[in-house]
Amino acid sequence: MSEAPHLTFDVNMPGMSTGHLVVPEGADCEALSLPVFSLNKGEGPRLLITGGCHGNELEGPIVARRLVDWLPEAQTCGRVIIVPVLNPPAVQAWSRNTPVDGLNLNRMFPGRADGSVTERIADAISRLLLPMADTIFDLHSFGPKWDFPPASVTHPIADADLMAQTVRMAEAFKFPMTLVWEYHDTPGMFDILAQSQGKVFICAELGGGTVGSEALAIYESGVRNALIALGLVEGKVEHPTFRQQKSSQTLETLPSDELKSPAPGIFEPRCSVLDEVKHGDLIGILHPMDWLSASSIEIRAPIASIVCGIRSGAHVDVNEEVALLARPLVRQSCRAGRHALDDSLDRG
Amino acid sequence: MSEAPHLTFDVNMPGMSTGHLVVPEGADCEALSLPVFSLNKGEGPRLLITGGCHGNELEGPIVARRLVDWLPEAQTCGRVIIVPVLNPPAVQAWSRNTPVDGLNLNRMFPGRADGSVTERIADAISRLLLPMADTIFDLHSFGPKWDFPPASVTHPIADADLMAQTVRMAEAFKFPMTLVWEYHDTPGMFDILAQSQGKVFICAELGGGTVGSEALAIYESGVRNALIALGLVEGKVEHPTFRQQKSSQTLETLPSDELKSPAPGIFEPRCSVLDEVKHGDLIGILHPMDWLSASSIEIRAPIASIVCGIRSGAHVDVNEEVALLARPLVRQSCRAGRHALDDSLDRG
Repeated sequence: MSEAPHLTFDVNMPGMSTGHLVVPEGADCEALSLPVFSLNKGEGPRLLITGGCHGNELEGPIVARRLVDWLPEAQTCGRVIIVPVLNPPAVQAWSRNTPVDGLNLNRMFPGRADGSVTERIADAISRLLLPMADTIFDLHSFGPKWDFPPASVTHPIADADLMAQTVRMAEAFKFPMTLVWEYHDTPGMFDILAQSQGKVFICAELGGGTVGSEALAIYESGVRNALIALGLVEGKVEHPTFRQQKSSQTLETLPSDELKSPAPGIFEPRCSVLDEVKHGDLIGILHPMDWLSASSIEIRAPIASIVCGIRSGAHVDVNEEVALLARPLVRQSCRAGRHALDDSLDRG
Repeated sequence: MSEAPHLTFDVNMPGMSTGHLVVPEGADCEALSLPVFSLNKGEGPRLLITGGCHGNELEGPIVARRLVDWLPEAQTCGRVIIVPVLNPPAVQAWSRNTPVDGLNLNRMFPGRADGSVTERIADAISRLLLPMADTIFDLHSFGPKWDFPPASVTHPIADADLMAQTVRMAEAFKFPMTLVWEYHDTPGMFDILAQSQGKVFICAELGGGTVGSEALAIYESGVRNALIALGLVEGKVEHPTFRQQKSSQTLETLPSDELKSPAPGIFEPRCSVLDEVKHGDLIGILHPMDWLSASSIEIRAPIASIVCGIRSGAHVDVNEEVALLARPLVRQSCRAGRHALDDSLDRG
């Protein structure tokens, strides 16, 4: 390896400055230069906004790029660092994982300086950008294969105070859904690393499916709401209208809320995101590819739920996720951080 | 090759019968068995409905499968043959083209019995199913990378009478858009083959993006409208509501209406499908990946148009299509088949 990861400019300069985060070359890939925008207005919150961790989730890079246009005028204090694209090779390939090494950047944190390209990206971000922020907005989406409402997401956090802070921050986006997602495949995730350092980390899931202009306006509005809540910009919070509805709800989802395909075949969705379903309601139908010799299989809601994600009609493998359900966050619970959540919700 | 393509059942049996279209094995792939449903109610129109030509357009297979559930009861005369999935390997791979040979089935007609698997599928359909129909509905969509309204589409046809018949049939779906698409990349397309035999062929483009339950209901309703117009089923024509609008318009699009990306980069859509745009209105923005050293490029409407398709926000190559514009079909024109269209439109 020829050099260490580095920034090509001094992010501490006042006002707006720009440059690159250089991820060194390795045996598998030449050096990468990730554009970085820094907006330094002195004392105040220190925020890092990232997009393009997964290459088929372009909502984040576009919203991040829009912020660069208006934030220099709007920001009144503090420091915001924006990296619209964390993973350029994946974005160029419209691929969730990095094509060069096949790795998922959001499972590689804190990365390795002598690893493959995905590990080197994670290492550069962890060492050079993460220490400069107390709050991180990582802009994801559910990608082209899912329908999903605009949502701000956190996993449960053992530290009760940090959990309460995180849920408050997540709710400040005023997205249709704030989701506490109990999820086990977390080793190497960016949020786990940031939270272990006491930082507030929000994973924005900016919808799913095609990335259209109307949806982008909603996503941008949500991020702007969060910037207002942080005190970085002034303005009036707006409740974005999503599919003719204005509402925000805080939900939780458990591993048992992931519905999986009982067989390989074509999944036909039979409900829509944010639908309320009762026990036994139809979620979708799995049609085996040989429609003559095998019966279609109905997939039904195991308990009363709200549909927070539904797979697009497509061929799926057996045990592939086809729907994600959720329920309003329960106040009385002994899971980690739940008492902090209760405090958070009690503020009304 | 071990055998000729064949049907495993007698499609002339009265009522509903089912079986397979067997596409023989070749050096590249084992034999394929495509499920086929036949609904024979005697004299009347002879219709073939196909889906799944492209493996990442699952709207068609799902709508075709739904028809199989209610058509046996509803159909009053004639014969309908339904093949929900023309290209099983492509559907299993969620891939536009067949993975085995990389070919686009909709450029391979009439196919070759001794060709690669895609050519063998085209050959089996051309020889065994196409002769049994006078009208064909081939159910496509714009796939996961585009937003597109539900539309029935035809290319211009030199035979004026067939053109008039085809546009009338296309309009009978009552989709938000009926589109006459002047398109040059037509050799090997299914419609060109069918039209050369004097048949009425409608390519349904059932939207784009995620395949959701609300959209599927619209698509099914449009196909049902067309079945009513053909006299195959009885019922009341419904004008499907698409994104809170009930309207149908007949448009035409020329090769010059395809807007392409001026450079590689991330395309940001700035308009929505069915938007009316004036000369110079913003369609989208192309952001080069190195956002620091290269300026973003605005893509604007060259003439007053209606947006009929817009690319999802994603990385695109230079000269990749990012938008498709259209205008109301002009009555006075000397292009092939236009006089027939005038007649068709004059019926009010």
